[in-house]
Amino acid sequence: MKEKGPKTITDNRLPIGIFDSGVGGLTVYRALHNRLPNEHFIYLGDTARVPYGTKSLETVERYAIENSSFLASRGIKVLVVACNTASALALPKIRETIGIEVIGVIGPGARKAVEITRNNPDAKIAVIATEATVSSNAYADSIRETSSNAKILQNPCPLFVPLAEEGWTEEEETYAIAKKHLANVVEFSPDVLVLGCTHYPILRKVIQETVGRDVTLIDSGEATAEEVAEFLEKRGLANTGQISYNQERRLCDDLDRFYVTDAADRFAHVAERFLGVKPKKLEAIEVFGFDKLKEY
Amino acid sequence: MKEKGPKTITDNRLPIGIFDSGVGGLTVYRALHNRLPNEHFIYLGDTARVPYGTKSLETVERYAIENSSFLASRGIKVLVVACNTASALALPKIRETIGIEVIGVIGPGARKAVEITRNNPDAKIAVIATEATVSSNAYADSIRETSSNAKILQNPCPLFVPLAEEGWTEEEETYAIAKKHLANVVEFSPDVLVLGCTHYPILRKVIQETVGRDVTLIDSGEATAEEVAEFLEKRGLANTGQISYNQERRLCDDLDRFYVTDAADRFAHVAERFLGVKPKKLEAIEVFGFDKLKEY
Repeated sequence: MKEKGPKTITDNRLPIGIFDSGVGGLTVYRALHNRLPNEHFIYLGDTARVPYGTKSLETVERYAIENSSFLASRGIKVLVVACNTASALALPKIRETIGIEVIGVIGPGARKAVEITRNNPDAKIAVIATEATVSSNAYADSIRETSSNAKILQNPCPLFVPLAEEGWTEEEETYAIAKKHLANVVEFSPDVLVLGCTHYPILRKVIQETVGRDVTLIDSGEATAEEVAEFLEKRGLANTGQISYNQERRLCDDLDRFYVTDAADRFAHVAERFLGVKPKKLEAIEVFGFDKLKEY
Repeated sequence: MKEKGPKTITDNRLPIGIFDSGVGGLTVYRALHNRLPNEHFIYLGDTARVPYGTKSLETVERYAIENSSFLASRGIKVLVVACNTASALALPKIRETIGIEVIGVIGPGARKAVEITRNNPDAKIAVIATEATVSSNAYADSIRETSSNAKILQNPCPLFVPLAEEGWTEEEETYAIAKKHLANVVEFSPDVLVLGCTHYPILRKVIQETVGRDVTLIDSGEATAEEVAEFLEKRGLANTGQISYNQERRLCDDLDRFYVTDAADRFAHVAERFLGVKPKKLEAIEVFGFDKLKEY
């Protein structure tokens, strides 16, 4: 039988696990790496089955559980679900399945939006995300949990993901599409706008210019890194030893491991576009059946 | 042991199988349906793992074999691989695995391009397709097989798939992106342009206007329907009986069956956008493990 609920992990030298549907979660990895330079990471991108944002609850749950089980099997002290769609749809199932603390990106992004607007009784919060995340209502539910008054608008922006993957971050065509995708948001005139998909921070400049300088953008990845830091501190799981004696930490250095379920070359290529550097340790693996393992 | 090579099928009342990575293959279904109104079809869209165009050879082969095995298990007289990427990468493996005649879309599209330009010694043929199809060189190889003289340009157009799926077929943003994606093609100034991805016929108008009226567009789906008709005729497998006594054939009527591996609602929605009608018989199924069956 699989355990229910997190088991007690005491080894603070274990890495932090991160999974995403593909390459987008690298923006969450970057945020975690910047906030927690003394930690090391194992990242899994499910590139064989990306994207999740147009798939069903059942399928996203199944994929998320296989990914989580793979990372759990490698030994991690906490699991970060970087993918907004998987965070929106599959957190309860993941928690049920793996005996490790799980932190998604929706809660932190929603709490950050509420925190920023807490002194404004007429606050308006907009969220842009994938179709699946918007349909799940996860951001709105999470915002409502802590702030019953904010007006909320959720809006899908389906073309932002391929535009980010193509690296069209400055193109006038991207500005034209952003104007169209964000027309509802501009009309809503929010105080804050949550970037509810890991790819969207790549288009931050275009998005900010389209909605205007007065709108505060929230990167759920950065909000998540903050909460992961708090969690590690509270549980005494922060790595207090020096992680490397020989080198200054850098993004994608050889202390962090990257796994993909397909097309490692393409992942490395897009990673370089997103982070300015290719992962040193990158391996293609298979995750089918990892959810069938009884012990990690 | 699995059989090698096609077994002898004699029952002309069996349906024609079609698989695609998702919804794009519906343009091939439409072409087949129009050309062969006396046949009925089983369509499988692998919506749980779409898209294939950015995935590796090994992964596309594995998915293609599972899909083909599923369709073979339902009883079909010929298998049409509507997905260009799977046709480019996986035809040999599919033929090795299932004991049924297999027709892909690359060969028919390439042969049509050569046929149209055969009296022109300086012919120039352009092909637009996914990254994986372009990298495979399958169209160029197939064109070279029958025409050694044509000049060939292959060009990926990655944003055309999401634009087609969103139904942005007339938007000025689509024209702007087409101008950018097709800049090389316009400069090359081809005689014919092969639409080497099932989604591209959806954007036919934009593509035609961007490359100019003088360029002949080739829809690989239509070329494939032609070759399927010839094959059925030659093998005596054309359905000579009346397929239905009660109704005129229509696209997506209840004689044709549609299967998806995920998100049937979304499939029905996009099908309506592509074909103007939702499938009457549509079911979500699982294809994992179908390649492990020994007998169909």
